[in-house]
Amino acid sequence: MKIASSPTRKENFPEWYQQVIKNSDLAENSPVRGCMVIKPWGYAIWENIQRHLDKMFKDTGHENAYFPLLIPVSFLEKEAAHVEGFAKECAVVTHHKLEDDGKGGLKPSGKLEEPLIIRPTSETIIGDAYSKWVQSYRDLPILINQWANVMRWEMRIRLFIRTSEFLWQEGHTAHATKEEAIEETLKMLDVYEVFAKKYLAIPVIKGEKTQEERFPGAVNTYTIEAMMQDGKALQAGTSHFLGQNFAKASDISFTDKQGDNVFAWTTSWGVSTRLIGGLIMTHSDDDGLVLPPMIAPKQIVFIPVYNNENDHRLVIRYCDELTKMLSSKKFNNDEIRSFIDDRDIKGGKRFWSNVKKGVPIRVEIGKREVEKKTVTITTRDKSAKDRTTIPKNEFLNNISDMLSGVHDSLYNRALRFRKANTKQATSIEEFRTFFEYPDVKGFVICHSDPNEGSEKRNEIMNEFKVSARCIPVNMQNEEGVCIFTGNTTSTKILYAKAY
Amino acid sequence: MKIASSPTRKENFPEWYQQVIKNSDLAENSPVRGCMVIKPWGYAIWENIQRHLDKMFKDTGHENAYFPLLIPVSFLEKEAAHVEGFAKECAVVTHHKLEDDGKGGLKPSGKLEEPLIIRPTSETIIGDAYSKWVQSYRDLPILINQWANVMRWEMRIRLFIRTSEFLWQEGHTAHATKEEAIEETLKMLDVYEVFAKKYLAIPVIKGEKTQEERFPGAVNTYTIEAMMQDGKALQAGTSHFLGQNFAKASDISFTDKQGDNVFAWTTSWGVSTRLIGGLIMTHSDDDGLVLPPMIAPKQIVFIPVYNNENDHRLVIRYCDELTKMLSSKKFNNDEIRSFIDDRDIKGGKRFWSNVKKGVPIRVEIGKREVEKKTVTITTRDKSAKDRTTIPKNEFLNNISDMLSGVHDSLYNRALRFRKANTKQATSIEEFRTFFEYPDVKGFVICHSDPNEGSEKRNEIMNEFKVSARCIPVNMQNEEGVCIFTGNTTSTKILYAKAY
Repeated sequence: MKIASSPTRKENFPEWYQQVIKNSDLAENSPVRGCMVIKPWGYAIWENIQRHLDKMFKDTGHENAYFPLLIPVSFLEKEAAHVEGFAKECAVVTHHKLEDDGKGGLKPSGKLEEPLIIRPTSETIIGDAYSKWVQSYRDLPILINQWANVMRWEMRIRLFIRTSEFLWQEGHTAHATKEEAIEETLKMLDVYEVFAKKYLAIPVIKGEKTQEERFPGAVNTYTIEAMMQDGKALQAGTSHFLGQNFAKASDISFTDKQGDNVFAWTTSWGVSTRLIGGLIMTHSDDDGLVLPPMIAPKQIVFIPVYNNENDHRLVIRYCDELTKMLSSKKFNNDEIRSFIDDRDIKGGKRFWSNVKKGVPIRVEIGKREVEKKTVTITTRDKSAKDRTTIPKNEFLNNISDMLSGVHDSLYNRALRFRKANTKQATSIEEFRTFFEYPDVKGFVICHSDPNEGSEKRNEIMNEFKVSARCIPVNMQNEEGVCIFTGNTTSTKILYAKAY
Repeated sequence: MKIASSPTRKENFPEWYQQVIKNSDLAENSPVRGCMVIKPWGYAIWENIQRHLDKMFKDTGHENAYFPLLIPVSFLEKEAAHVEGFAKECAVVTHHKLEDDGKGGLKPSGKLEEPLIIRPTSETIIGDAYSKWVQSYRDLPILINQWANVMRWEMRIRLFIRTSEFLWQEGHTAHATKEEAIEETLKMLDVYEVFAKKYLAIPVIKGEKTQEERFPGAVNTYTIEAMMQDGKALQAGTSHFLGQNFAKASDISFTDKQGDNVFAWTTSWGVSTRLIGGLIMTHSDDDGLVLPPMIAPKQIVFIPVYNNENDHRLVIRYCDELTKMLSSKKFNNDEIRSFIDDRDIKGGKRFWSNVKKGVPIRVEIGKREVEKKTVTITTRDKSAKDRTTIPKNEFLNNISDMLSGVHDSLYNRALRFRKANTKQATSIEEFRTFFEYPDVKGFVICHSDPNEGSEKRNEIMNEFKVSARCIPVNMQNEEGVCIFTGNTTSTKILYAKAY
C-alpha cells in the first residue's frame, strides 16, 4: 500500500526534493525561464507565513506600503557595492510597447530614454521616497515593510530555493541614530528566529555574516541559518545594518535636535518563498511533504472509509459533525483548519495523497469508528502505520495539544539532527577530514579570524565548496587559535556547504 | 480653525482629488514614469479591501495561487483580440543584465532570445498552466485567484485611477460547460456588487458591456459602474465570460464524460487599487478624505485635549481605558480599530489631520469628559462642527451601531446623489441637452440598440466624450424606440462620461 517518493533522500537528495514538490502539488516550473508557478497548496503555505509574520511586524510597530516594481538604472548606480551585487542578474525593461515585426509577429518598440530594471531589492527606490519624507528628526523612525515580488536573473533554478522571480517581504527602516538602527536590525533578526521556531518548527543559528558574505552595500549583515537534511546550510532570512551608505546614496538627511543636518541610519531585512524550500528540506521524509501545523494549509484531514453507499452516508455524517465541533476550537489563537477528503478515489490513494501533501493529522473514519464513537489517527511526524484509535471526545478535547505535539516533535527532531551533525574543529586537519568524505555532512564551527585574509582558508573553502555561513552570536566569548592563521581570536565561525 | 482642502470639488474636481490624496497621505507619484508609491495609510485601505474580498472569494470556493510576472511575447500573440488590446502599452524586458557602458554608467546587456512583457493581465500565462493541469472533466472546475501587480504603460497618470503599475486581483476559472462558466461570471459580478455596497459603501450599477467596450478576447464582459461626485462613471470591477477563446488559444482541452476531447470554458474577473480612487471620488468632501468604517485603517481616533501636563496624564489614562474596553468589542465580526493621536502638535491641527485622513469617528477627550465620564464625538459623514457629548457607557455599548450608522449614511448619500443625477432620455435631443451643458452631470439611460451600428450614435458619443458604460441588468424588459436608430428594442444602455 505504501507509495513512497522515489528516489529516497539517501538515494538522490536533489531529485527527492523535486519529487516531494511535485507529489504534494506545491509548485512547478513555468515556460518563462527561471519563473515558477506557485500552486494553491504551496501558495496557501505562503499565505500562512505572510499572515503570521505580518502580525509580528505590526506588533513591533511596522506598517506596510508599496513601492514601484521598476527602478531606473541611474538609481542602482548610486551605491557602488549595490551595483556590483545586482547588475549582473537583472531583468531590464527597454521598451514600452510592441509593434508588428512585418513577419506576423511582434517586436519591441517605443524605446525608453532610460532603461529600467525590475527590482532585485528596493533599497534605492525606497531610499528615494524616504529622502522626501524625512526632513526633521520628528519624521523618524520610518518603519515600513513591503510584500512584493522581486527578480534576480538566475541560470540554474531550484523551485523555492533559487528562482528568477520570487515573493518576499522587505523591511526598510530609517532612524535618527546608529544605535537605534542597530537595535532594529537585531530586533528583526530575533523576529525571524522566533518565527522560524514557532511557526516553521525550524531551529536556526543566528549570526553575523563575514565581510565576504555581506549584502551589497551593507555595513553588517545578520542571518539565520538552518541545516537541511543533506547537511547543507540554508540562509533563511537576513537583516542588514546599512549604516549611512544608502542614506548618503539617496540623500536621506534630516535636521536633528541640535539643528544640524545629518544623514539617517537605515536597515533592511527580508525573508522569501525560499522559506518553503527550507521547510521541505528540514521536515519532509521519504513519504513526501511534512508540514508543521502552524503553517499547514489544512491541519486535519478526515478520510471516510466505506464499502457501500449506506456506510458512506453514515461516515460522512459523522465527519461533518466532527468538523463542525472542531470549528469552534482554537489552536494558538487561530481557527483550526480541517476538511473532509471525500474524493471519489480509492481510500488508500486518498490516504497516501494526504500523506504526500504533509497534512499533520489524518483521521480515518469507518463504520467501526462511527459505532464506537472513536477516531483513528495517524500523525505526519510519525510512521504512517502508527495508528491510534481514541474516543471522539478525547480527540476533540485534546486537538490543540495534539497539534502542538506534532509541531514540537518536528522541531525537536530537526534540532537533534542539527546537533548530531555539527562538529567543532580545532585544526585544519579536522576541518578537512569533516568535509572530505561525501557521506559526512553538516556544520563545522571553529575558531577563525574574520579580519585576517588567509590563502589557506580560501583554498580549503574552494576545494570543498564550503562557505562561512555566519559568526554565531552567543559563541564568541572563548579565546582560541584560528585554525587557518594560527592567530589568537575569540571569533568562532560556522562553515558549511550551502544552498 | 477649519482648514479645508483647496480647491473645493466645485472649483476644480481633478485638483481637489490630488489634494485629498496628498493631505491624507495615501499615495504619491514616484520618479518612475507612471508608477505610484502607496503610502501606509493608503496601503492599509488596500489591505482591508484584500482581506474582506479574499474571504468572499474563498467562501465561494476559490483558492489563491501565483503565476509568473513575465509573459513571453509569443504567448500574447496567441489570442488576436488580446494582442490588439495590450501590445500598445506594455513594458518589454529585452535583456537580463547590465554592463559597463564605458562612460561610467551601465547599459543593457545579455539580450534575450525572446522578449518578455510584464503581465498586463494573465490570461495567456495562466492558460498555459491550465492546459497542463486539465486532462479530464474530473480536473474541472479550476477556481483560482491571484493577488498581483500588473503593468500597462500609461502616458497620462491619475493616482489610483490610471497608473502604469497597479495592484489587483485576477480570478481565472475553467469549467466543463458553458452554463457553468456563465454562472461563475455572474456570481463574481454579484460578489463585486455586494463588496462595493457592504464594504466600500459604494452603490453600483451592474450590467453587461457593449461590444465596443468588451475586454480584448472576451465573449461578454460584465461590469459594476459607480457614479463619482463629478457625475462621471467609474468602472469599478469587471467579470468576463471568455467562452472558449482563451481555451483554444492555450489548448485547455479535456476528455468529457462521453469520452470526447473538448475545449474548456473560461472566465476572468478583477478589481484593482482603482477602487481606492473610486472611494475617494464617491465619499470625500471639501475637508478631505472620507472613509467607510469597514475599510478605514483606523475607525476611531481619540484626540486628547489638555492645557497642562497634569491634565494630559489624566486624559491619556481615560483614553487608554476606553481603547482597552473597545478592544473586546466587534464591528461586523471584526476587531475595532482605534488609536490615540497623542502627537506633540496643537489639538486643532491633530483634529483636522484626522478629518483629512477620513477617520470615521473622532472622539475628543478633555478634562471635562474625564470628570463627567463622557465622550465628545464627531463623525466623518457629518459636519466637523456637529459635536455630540454622550456618556462613556453609551458610547461603548453603541459603538458598533455608530459605525454602521456612518456606513449607511455614506451609502445612502451616494445612492441619493446617483439617483438625482441619472436621467432617462427618450430622444436624441434630450440626450444632447443633458451632456451639452458642462454643469449638468451624470448618467443617461435610454433605449439603445446595441447590435445596430449607428453613425449618429458614434458622432454624439464622440462629440461629448461620452461612452456606453453598460447594459444594466434588471432594466431590459420594456420595449421602446432606440433614440439613435429609431428601431424597436428592449435594450436600455447607460451612457456617461467616464474615467
